Amino acid sequence: MIIKFKEKAKPEEIALLRDVLQNQGFSIHESTGTLITLFGVIGDTSKFDPNSLYVYDFIETVLRVQEPYKQVNRKFHPEDTIINVKGVQIGGKNVVALAGPCAVESLEQMQSIAPLVKAAGAKILRAGAYKPRTSPYSFQGLGEKGLKILGQIGREYSLPVVSELMSIEDIPLFIENVDIIQIGARNMQNFSLLKEVGKLDKPVLLKRGMANTIEEWLMSAEYIFAGGNDKVILCDRGIRTFETSTRNTLDISSIPVLKKLSHLPVIVDPSHAAGRWEFIESMSRAAVAAGADGLIIEVHPDPEKALSDGQQSLKPERFSTLMQSCRLVAGAIGRTME
Amino acid sequence: MIIKFKEKAKPEEIALLRDVLQNQGFSIHESTGTLITLFGVIGDTSKFDPNSLYVYDFIETVLRVQEPYKQVNRKFHPEDTIINVKGVQIGGKNVVALAGPCAVESLEQMQSIAPLVKAAGAKILRAGAYKPRTSPYSFQGLGEKGLKILGQIGREYSLPVVSELMSIEDIPLFIENVDIIQIGARNMQNFSLLKEVGKLDKPVLLKRGMANTIEEWLMSAEYIFAGGNDKVILCDRGIRTFETSTRNTLDISSIPVLKKLSHLPVIVDPSHAAGRWEFIESMSRAAVAAGADGLIIEVHPDPEKALSDGQQSLKPERFSTLMQSCRLVAGAIGRTME
Amino acid sequence: MIIKFKEKAKPEEIALLRDVLQNQGFSIHESTGTLITLFGVIGDTSKFDPNSLYVYDFIETVLRVQEPYKQVNRKFHPEDTIINVKGVQIGGKNVVALAGPCAVESLEQMQSIAPLVKAAGAKILRAGAYKPRTSPYSFQGLGEKGLKILGQIGREYSLPVVSELMSIEDIPLFIENVDIIQIGARNMQNFSLLKEVGKLDKPVLLKRGMANTIEEWLMSAEYIFAGGNDKVILCDRGIRTFETSTRNTLDISSIPVLKKLSHLPVIVDPSHAAGRWEFIESMSRAAVAAGADGLIIEVHPDPEKALSDGQQSLKPERFSTLMQSCRLVAGAIGRTME
Amino acid sequence: MIIKFKEKAKPEEIALLRDVLQNQGFSIHESTGTLITLFGVIGDTSKFDPNSLYVYDFIETVLRVQEPYKQVNRKFHPEDTIINVKGVQIGGKNVVALAGPCAVESLEQMQSIAPLVKAAGAKILRAGAYKPRTSPYSFQGLGEKGLKILGQIGREYSLPVVSELMSIEDIPLFIENVDIIQIGARNMQNFSLLKEVGKLDKPVLLKRGMANTIEEWLMSAEYIFAGGNDKVILCDRGIRTFETSTRNTLDISSIPVLKKLSHLPVIVDPSHAAGRWEFIESMSRAAVAAGADGLIIEVHPDPEKALSDGQQSLKPERFSTLMQSCRLVAGAIGRTME
Repeated sequence: MIIKFKEKAKPEEIALLRDVLQNQGFSIHESTGTLITLFGVIGDTSKFDPNSLYVYDFIETVLRVQEPYKQVNRKFHPEDTIINVKGVQIGGKNVVALAGPCAVESLEQMQSIAPLVKAAGAKILRAGAYKPRTSPYSFQGLGEKGLKILGQIGREYSLPVVSELMSIEDIPLFIENVDIIQIGARNMQNFSLLKEVGKLDKPVLLKRGMANTIEEWLMSAEYIFAGGNDKVILCDRGIRTFETSTRNTLDISSIPVLKKLSHLPVIVDPSHAAGRWEFIESMSRAAVAAGADGLIIEVHPDPEKALSDGQQSLKPERFSTLMQSCRLVAGAIGRTME
Repeated sequence: MIIKFKEKAKPEEIALLRDVLQNQGFSIHESTGTLITLFGVIGDTSKFDPNSLYVYDFIETVLRVQEPYKQVNRKFHPEDTIINVKGVQIGGKNVVALAGPCAVESLEQMQSIAPLVKAAGAKILRAGAYKPRTSPYSFQGLGEKGLKILGQIGREYSLPVVSELMSIEDIPLFIENVDIIQIGARNMQNFSLLKEVGKLDKPVLLKRGMANTIEEWLMSAEYIFAGGNDKVILCDRGIRTFETSTRNTLDISSIPVLKKLSHLPVIVDPSHAAGRWEFIESMSRAAVAAGADGLIIEVHPDPEKALSDGQQSLKPERFSTLMQSCRLVAGAIGRTME
Repeated sequence: MIIKFKEKAKPEEIALLRDVLQNQGFSIHESTGTLITLFGVIGDTSKFDPNSLYVYDFIETVLRVQEPYKQVNRKFHPEDTIINVKGVQIGGKNVVALAGPCAVESLEQMQSIAPLVKAAGAKILRAGAYKPRTSPYSFQGLGEKGLKILGQIGREYSLPVVSELMSIEDIPLFIENVDIIQIGARNMQNFSLLKEVGKLDKPVLLKRGMANTIEEWLMSAEYIFAGGNDKVILCDRGIRTFETSTRNTLDISSIPVLKKLSHLPVIVDPSHAAGRWEFIESMSRAAVAAGADGLIIEVHPDPEKALSDGQQSLKPERFSTLMQSCRLVAGAIGRTME
Repeated sequence: MIIKFKEKAKPEEIALLRDVLQNQGFSIHESTGTLITLFGVIGDTSKFDPNSLYVYDFIETVLRVQEPYKQVNRKFHPEDTIINVKGVQIGGKNVVALAGPCAVESLEQMQSIAPLVKAAGAKILRAGAYKPRTSPYSFQGLGEKGLKILGQIGREYSLPVVSELMSIEDIPLFIENVDIIQIGARNMQNFSLLKEVGKLDKPVLLKRGMANTIEEWLMSAEYIFAGGNDKVILCDRGIRTFETSTRNTLDISSIPVLKKLSHLPVIVDPSHAAGRWEFIESMSRAAVAAGADGLIIEVHPDPEKALSDGQQSLKPERFSTLMQSCRLVAGAIGRTME
């Protein structure tokens, strides 16, 4: 952390701050020019909020030079993390597809879609039982019943399953029925929820909030690690911008940025980023080419009858085409997509 | 809702959609030009997601012409809602100040600040017991102990109190100790939490999420109404933009926009919008001039020792100056700030 | 400027950079910890692009601690700049209104509007002759003819006039016919144009680009100063965000931020920020309350017949009401609006 | 265009609008429900600004159902446009690389880089002679001298050349020395400049403005077409968002969106989108996989000595690696990159 004093800062103010910081265990490298004084603050400042120093009127700028995240930081864990979900590896050489409908609608629907996405190459089955909907009047998901159907279908077709958790009290149900717990974009900074999943021994798929920086996202992953759970999969699903031709704007550069900053696996959700099925294949190929470790894609046996997100769901045959196309791209960059 | 078909849409496709919509109870006004066909869909489409129709490949555009919110809509409730909190009215002619520290830090801190903000004109005391912090290593609030201190101080100084709720399981504690439950920006679309506070008979201060549109915000208020709680106060605290000179960008125009669209009271949090104490007075005056019904401001007896948000906390004397200045602005637009 | 080396930086790399910087005339304060090395770079770094140093693979972070603008910086010019336009002062205690139609449409239109805005209290007449329109098929303004009408009307009613310049080749026409040259939001970083108006002895009203930071805006003002013209008025007209209920989002906090960083006068254009006439009065009051030195507002004698921007133009009587209301707000904060 | 009246709209107001629109040559399909009246407006509304109707207080919503662009619209020109630049085709099956330094710095620099980028597979040489720099104190480019060096080197190495035009008065120099005229992001809505390049018979590479929607971008292309020049290449270089880990956020979905809406070729500039050389290869592969028709990349013989943008310039050998990697991706999706 570096501190720049205002030009008019008085010696006693500089001395005051020196004391304050030394009392917190930091050591100070001081540079005094003719006009300005700088402090280089040495020590573990990752747990210190640099903005808090602006409370002092004599400070002009405080600059952090250390990342505020530790356990998810590649600097302290250079090798890629690979997460094993019932034999499916996420984060290795193989690019993994997670697929399934937006929501569990019925046992029949799940029975019809599971073998199709599996045949196309998906390794993990996705479907929501608790749905975060903007409107209180929209279909909210089947809840417990839906989660149990998902669990049952996963066992039946030997597919690990992932579903979104919205409330702490549902955790026991999730422990029993799902293999990966998804934290949705709207809950990326629901710290109460993050703390609880941090206590579990189950992989967490942490989606990026639509207005959250990569750093904030890594800090939310750090919350989960801080609780003791080191099985975190990051999932970008687009951020909110002024552009309205897609539902969100997929931040494709988050992939190489995250690969530099962190050791965690990174997957991409082109369905929510695009919001329209016709753009999903192109964006999926881009995500694989950029280095994503996986794709999570909405596929519905009959999108026109879907209770939610039909407009961004692929039909099974389109998903199959997408998989073939992504597999070729994976091959072109030295990876597999089996 | 209006639907525009693609030029190449076939008669049987148009007929299919007519059936689908009529089966959902809508009636259709059809306009057929030489090239394009339009459907005007009549009926209560507020509970229908227009995007879902994009699943049909023969549809080009679906346009909503009805707001998706009902109970918070001024059209169906033309008069301003005034919320009475232990005798303090929010939403009437008088502009209300809510003030206090970012976080409850100790009984002594609260005892020193409460009389000062009250003397300066604040009608409601604010302080956090559960703090949403970006870093798991930052001070997370005193929790239950903090909430009880807040409740005690409120009773002692006859000030209603407001504090942020982060988890459903803490609701009983909040019912007992606070007069207004705050839902923070990061939880604006935590629908599980919204549903629960919708069941209570206690005012809810609903902050705008940093990437949420005004419409989404009103939909979150609608969630609370849908549960039966019609005491919602909206609070803008800035949105996230590319500008970095302030913590967030205060969307001052949300005030007149909300006053047009909804009957709910609107207050502004300049502390979180600015992120730096030096800009807060100017922004507070602007909020009052724009028509806000209240201000919620961070005031700390000794910001330099604050455990969080010191940089955006006012000293009591600065808060007092702000109040005098805002009172004059309120008077200039025909309101009071008593 | 502060430079943080990567932990793995070798002594010869650190030495290389020391040479590079010293050869450019900087002196270096070096801090070497057990893990990292920091350089504090002393000298005038305002003309140096810190990002350029990322070319060196052994550098982790480069932090600027000095503003890149000099002449518009309040640090080097503590007193407020007041710009005198034919006797009208912009930047002093009095808040100035600039008003008029979006575009000059005819002599008659200008003759009907000028006395009305003057009577309501506007001190400067605005109207566009060259209009930046998103569509090539929209009305593009009357050009030279329009500018001459504007100049004539200004003289007739003793109102200084302001109009937008879009091309270098029109400068002679502007010198002859207008008193303030407006650089529009879309041209805020049209550096060729900025360089040319920098050579003139005429006030420049520099609008903020819709995606530009306050710092970039001040750098564009610095371009004008660098050419020798120190009569720059900054005008915020909203920035682009995800919110669509208004045309742009008015960044009200830019007013106090600019007042801190720069000595230049700051005015606000609520018409373009709102995009809808019904929100303009509320936003105008807010701008005055926040400390703006002026307002520029679109007023049309008959908005329903306006050739452009009718939806955001006020009728003369509404403008008159707005002026009375803003005058009271100005009074409440110790200013006048005469 | 569809118009929804407010519920309280009076019959005479509805009649007034009917007259206004019919007088402009439109025909009206009217739908009257019990509460609301809708107008379906038939005719060529592409040249009509729907927002202008909000001037009428009795109108609630105006919805456009027709794109405002015509000539660049794929609906009216279903086949892909292929632009031939001295034998190099942009927009066909082959993906084209444009490469070279940010700025022309000297004849020697250009002589050293041209053969290297050509050998690596670049088909077109890029370099700036007039540089848009945020600071007036930064290197502004060699101007005319630089442009002539670029032209000379292009002829010497049989590489067509592209360079950015910033001012109308430089057009004759560009006609003589360059093969593609670039309009930079900051000038995307410099309509005076667009009109002038619209009169030329030379391909124009039109970059997306950093705060511009895809629709606005296509409207700027329409400006060039409206002048008579139908050789427009669209180039995305990222948009401005709140994320700061990259210089801009590359909107990868703009590629499939543009391919749907328009027939023009689309290329991507990963150098400006990323702002850091280490992310460029990953983003280049993504752009090719998403369907881009080309890449424009900054390559410098010695980035550490570059006068501008060194941090985002690739060394020639890194560019060569990138080309090999992108070529494989192009092959994977059935294209070539020769």
